[in-house]
Amino acid sequence: MSETSELHTLPARSGRAVRLKKGQSIRIINTHGQQVVDTWAFNAEDLREFMSMEHLRPTIGSIRPTAGHKLHTNRRRPILTFVEDTSPGIHDTLMAACDNYRYGLLGCTEYHDNCTDNLFAGMQRLGLTPPECPSPLNLWMNIPVHADGSTEWGVPVSKPGDHVVLRAEMDCVVAMSACPQDILPINGENLKPTEAHYQVLD
Amino acid sequence: MSETSELHTLPARSGRAVRLKKGQSIRIINTHGQQVVDTWAFNAEDLREFMSMEHLRPTIGSIRPTAGHKLHTNRRRPILTFVEDTSPGIHDTLMAACDNYRYGLLGCTEYHDNCTDNLFAGMQRLGLTPPECPSPLNLWMNIPVHADGSTEWGVPVSKPGDHVVLRAEMDCVVAMSACPQDILPINGENLKPTEAHYQVLD
Repeated sequence: MSETSELHTLPARSGRAVRLKKGQSIRIINTHGQQVVDTWAFNAEDLREFMSMEHLRPTIGSIRPTAGHKLHTNRRRPILTFVEDTSPGIHDTLMAACDNYRYGLLGCTEYHDNCTDNLFAGMQRLGLTPPECPSPLNLWMNIPVHADGSTEWGVPVSKPGDHVVLRAEMDCVVAMSACPQDILPINGENLKPTEAHYQVLD
Repeated sequence: MSETSELHTLPARSGRAVRLKKGQSIRIINTHGQQVVDTWAFNAEDLREFMSMEHLRPTIGSIRPTAGHKLHTNRRRPILTFVEDTSPGIHDTLMAACDNYRYGLLGCTEYHDNCTDNLFAGMQRLGLTPPECPSPLNLWMNIPVHADGSTEWGVPVSKPGDHVVLRAEMDCVVAMSACPQDILPINGENLKPTEAHYQVLD
């Protein structure tokens, strides 16, 4: 893999998308160490096929994909392979992308940036409109699940510069949102969403 | 509630759907005690709004809804209230509806009945086509989640005649599939999918 690939910024509270050819990879970097990055992948030939958390969990037999796992679509085909992870491997598959409805329930009375709109905005920059907002792979989101099934809004356990590498198993579009959540501590106790970075690797 | 409501059969390996007015309820009965019933709910006015497991989990703070919980849509509104549960309360929100792709991965070389097609067939009996197959509420499906995030295909812990009651919080369509899974033991160790029953309660 090229180590000189251009470093792109995923601005705080924003979304971006990138096309990957089969065999290319993307490195997603938690630059400041406490930022959740909601991540999606769509089949480039048919956006109705996409990485799906509810199809991925039964296939890998876990609620937490780790390096080595293939990540499956709603048609049960691998779209990405989770190749590398320098963080402790705590990512979330359970929680929907935040949306303006969610911030309304959290007390916001005006529009709040959110991952669902970021997905659509990021894809729009490539001239693409996804058919829906699939449940994302929430990189670095720490959602402990207790024995009774209850969940918690944890703080990320990652550190600055931690990164994951995801390899395309088909031509696809990977979309990312630097989660704008600043009410719950999922982006750190300071409640300060930050930028992240990404690189495409041949 | 009327106790003389007509008892309808949900045939083994099949799907059915029923319209509920706001305030009406449905009782879903695990007649033989070991049958998983995949369950969906759609806003009757706009089928693009539906009960959504990934939106429900953050709202209730749990991977396991129990009696007393409101069950939310992809627009974060309550569509059903989980009113009553005579079983031990072990239901699943993690696993996608089975589909023909899934049975292919499990070794089937010919078409296998599946909950995804049962959803569409059940809705079609009412002249309706859902926009997609949302991740279902898998009543009585026992998926233990271990501390490391790994999952298991458990046997139901329910007994014959156990039932749940779900009350409509808006005019909606509730769809059900008596899961045809006969390879994994989710419908009991005998691997024999059975019928279930349901009643609409005013």
